[in-house]
Amino acid sequence: MIRILKENAEIILPQNGLEEKAVQAGKENRKLIIKLGFDPTAPDLHLGHAVVLKKLKQFQELGHQVIIVVGSFTARIGDPTGKNKARQPLNAEEVKHNAETYISQLAKVIDVEKAKIVFNSDWLDALPFSEVIQLMSQVTVAQLLQRNDFSKRFTENIPIAMHELVYPILQGFDSVQIECDIEMGGTDQLFNCTMGRQLQEIHGRSPQIVMCMPLLKGLDGKEKMSKSLKNTIGLTDTPNEMFGKTMSIPDTLINEFIDLTTDFSVEEKENLKLRIKDGENPMYIKKLIAKNIITQYHDPESAEQAEMFFTNQFQNKNDDEKVFEPVSLNSLNNRQESMTLSELCHQLKNKESKSFIRRLIINGGIQINHQKITDPDEKVAVTKGTKIKIGKRSFFELL
Amino acid sequence: MIRILKENAEIILPQNGLEEKAVQAGKENRKLIIKLGFDPTAPDLHLGHAVVLKKLKQFQELGHQVIIVVGSFTARIGDPTGKNKARQPLNAEEVKHNAETYISQLAKVIDVEKAKIVFNSDWLDALPFSEVIQLMSQVTVAQLLQRNDFSKRFTENIPIAMHELVYPILQGFDSVQIECDIEMGGTDQLFNCTMGRQLQEIHGRSPQIVMCMPLLKGLDGKEKMSKSLKNTIGLTDTPNEMFGKTMSIPDTLINEFIDLTTDFSVEEKENLKLRIKDGENPMYIKKLIAKNIITQYHDPESAEQAEMFFTNQFQNKNDDEKVFEPVSLNSLNNRQESMTLSELCHQLKNKESKSFIRRLIINGGIQINHQKITDPDEKVAVTKGTKIKIGKRSFFELL
Repeated sequence: MIRILKENAEIILPQNGLEEKAVQAGKENRKLIIKLGFDPTAPDLHLGHAVVLKKLKQFQELGHQVIIVVGSFTARIGDPTGKNKARQPLNAEEVKHNAETYISQLAKVIDVEKAKIVFNSDWLDALPFSEVIQLMSQVTVAQLLQRNDFSKRFTENIPIAMHELVYPILQGFDSVQIECDIEMGGTDQLFNCTMGRQLQEIHGRSPQIVMCMPLLKGLDGKEKMSKSLKNTIGLTDTPNEMFGKTMSIPDTLINEFIDLTTDFSVEEKENLKLRIKDGENPMYIKKLIAKNIITQYHDPESAEQAEMFFTNQFQNKNDDEKVFEPVSLNSLNNRQESMTLSELCHQLKNKESKSFIRRLIINGGIQINHQKITDPDEKVAVTKGTKIKIGKRSFFELL
Repeated sequence: MIRILKENAEIILPQNGLEEKAVQAGKENRKLIIKLGFDPTAPDLHLGHAVVLKKLKQFQELGHQVIIVVGSFTARIGDPTGKNKARQPLNAEEVKHNAETYISQLAKVIDVEKAKIVFNSDWLDALPFSEVIQLMSQVTVAQLLQRNDFSKRFTENIPIAMHELVYPILQGFDSVQIECDIEMGGTDQLFNCTMGRQLQEIHGRSPQIVMCMPLLKGLDGKEKMSKSLKNTIGLTDTPNEMFGKTMSIPDTLINEFIDLTTDFSVEEKENLKLRIKDGENPMYIKKLIAKNIITQYHDPESAEQAEMFFTNQFQNKNDDEKVFEPVSLNSLNNRQESMTLSELCHQLKNKESKSFIRRLIINGGIQINHQKITDPDEKVAVTKGTKIKIGKRSFFELL
């Protein structure tokens, strides 16, 4: 059991802590309590998050108790970056909405019915200022400034507002409140999770085990997968998106994807890695990875269809042979006989920002009926049969 | 008017701020509001505090409004210095008691009837955590670490607990709450007072003027006057104590004492300094200073008597010629026919700690009937006529 739980984990602190906690819980005839915290700010879970979630799922499958701590307090306050102005804080309604979205995405990996969902505003809202001060007295400034990002900013004279230093303390206090045995996170959470250990000890509790999963790299193969870097595969991406994006990863990322994104058995994983090593075309392995991912988040049929679509779209060279996604004229907003190119493209790809679309047009990334147009403000006829190619992968036909 | 107010002030920030505030208040036909804050922890005001209080008195005499902010919030929390344990916080009862003691001592200088006394727990107790965070977002870590003592500790790796950094923010927030025009303090308060300016501006108010008075040196002539250094002249000291202590200051301190502790006129002050310069025996000038101080905190008769007592005690060499302070046998607690020397001396000098008394005995500082006794546990007869000399200045006779 412990072997499975330790698989892929990059940091377990203290090293033998997991075994000891398990033995202790066994003696006390109780489940382990595993914490995962998140701030409900515009959630959009991707395969990077799933690395941690899949580990939580393993704990669940072994009968342990997962507690999801929604950072409703933190999120409602907002995170003012300027010195004089606070960012517009989220209101209670928005927090609730975001939390629901997040939890519905969690359900793609873990059993949310069995997980306990708690909101840290339940204890932080009511925390008297005198107890806040008490809590802050238990942590030193130097200790907080050791956190990598704080340390870097401090050294480079980039302002750190005082309340930013308080966040790790609050995250640690959450662990005190829910009395968890283990806190899960990415390796970037090591510092904050360690704060939980410290505060639990000060409050006379057994300190939690910190378990950090590796940070999955994004599609660029360089930076960690992150929404702001636009290098993600989202858990709610369509099968075609998942397939195409997986095929786009650099070959150097294949082993990492095998380990962290698929649910192949250990033996299957080793076998795939061997095939790469033996010189097999990486494209075939990527296809297997892509289908495995789609099967996890959609179903096997969608995985097959996505493969066919991909082969059709990208492996046949001629645009005319592509499948164009039909778009009803009636589905367009404010439709007129002609629209500016940028407006039309933005409606078809509304996940992208307007400025992104304009740049794409100017850089020659858009074709109308196989004609490149580079003026975003050019009016184009909006009529049945118009074919629009946006970027390398998106093909639409107005009907 | 402004000339008087500026007299002796070491820092006025911004430099012309006082004039501008006065003009502004004049236009608005209102009084200036001058803030002085203090933490009600075991108050014992001395001439160092009086430097600031005398300045407040001048503002009062010109018709302005003094507000005393009692740091009842800070004091109830306590100031835990260890990392894991908070110092026993003061309870509400103790805070109230200390505040009353403090205010009664204030009355020795300012008109407390005309001053407004407020307690910062009135607004800080009820401050929701979310607003605490908001407040902290308005100040950066680097800024707080610029405060001299923090900077020194940070550089020398001496732990600074997070809540310590919050104190200057709270002091600044007090200024926002009471909407003061001027905050008074010693020069060691410059940083904290400047925080008030910053927070008032962020909260859309006109920033306060910071007015810092010099820190009076203590009897040693080296360190600032401070209870913990035992180099003070207390506002509640007896006339004899005030006289003796003033006579004990080094000659280098005379000019500073003339300026900061007396209420001589500007001309009289200049004249005294000239007399020193012209080679007059400094002892005569010190006597004038001592009598001036006693007249301020007691009355002119007490000043005369103290001078006579001093002359008798210290300028006549023979102990037999001293005046022994009569102590009734009945006034002793748990009186028995004989008591240990340390117990007897401690009852006579109960302002000193027991350990201080024991050390004094062991070091030969105590005489019973002109006989030195160096064993603190030796039993001495407690009878009428017993003469006890404690240290250099205290003479008692049991009656």
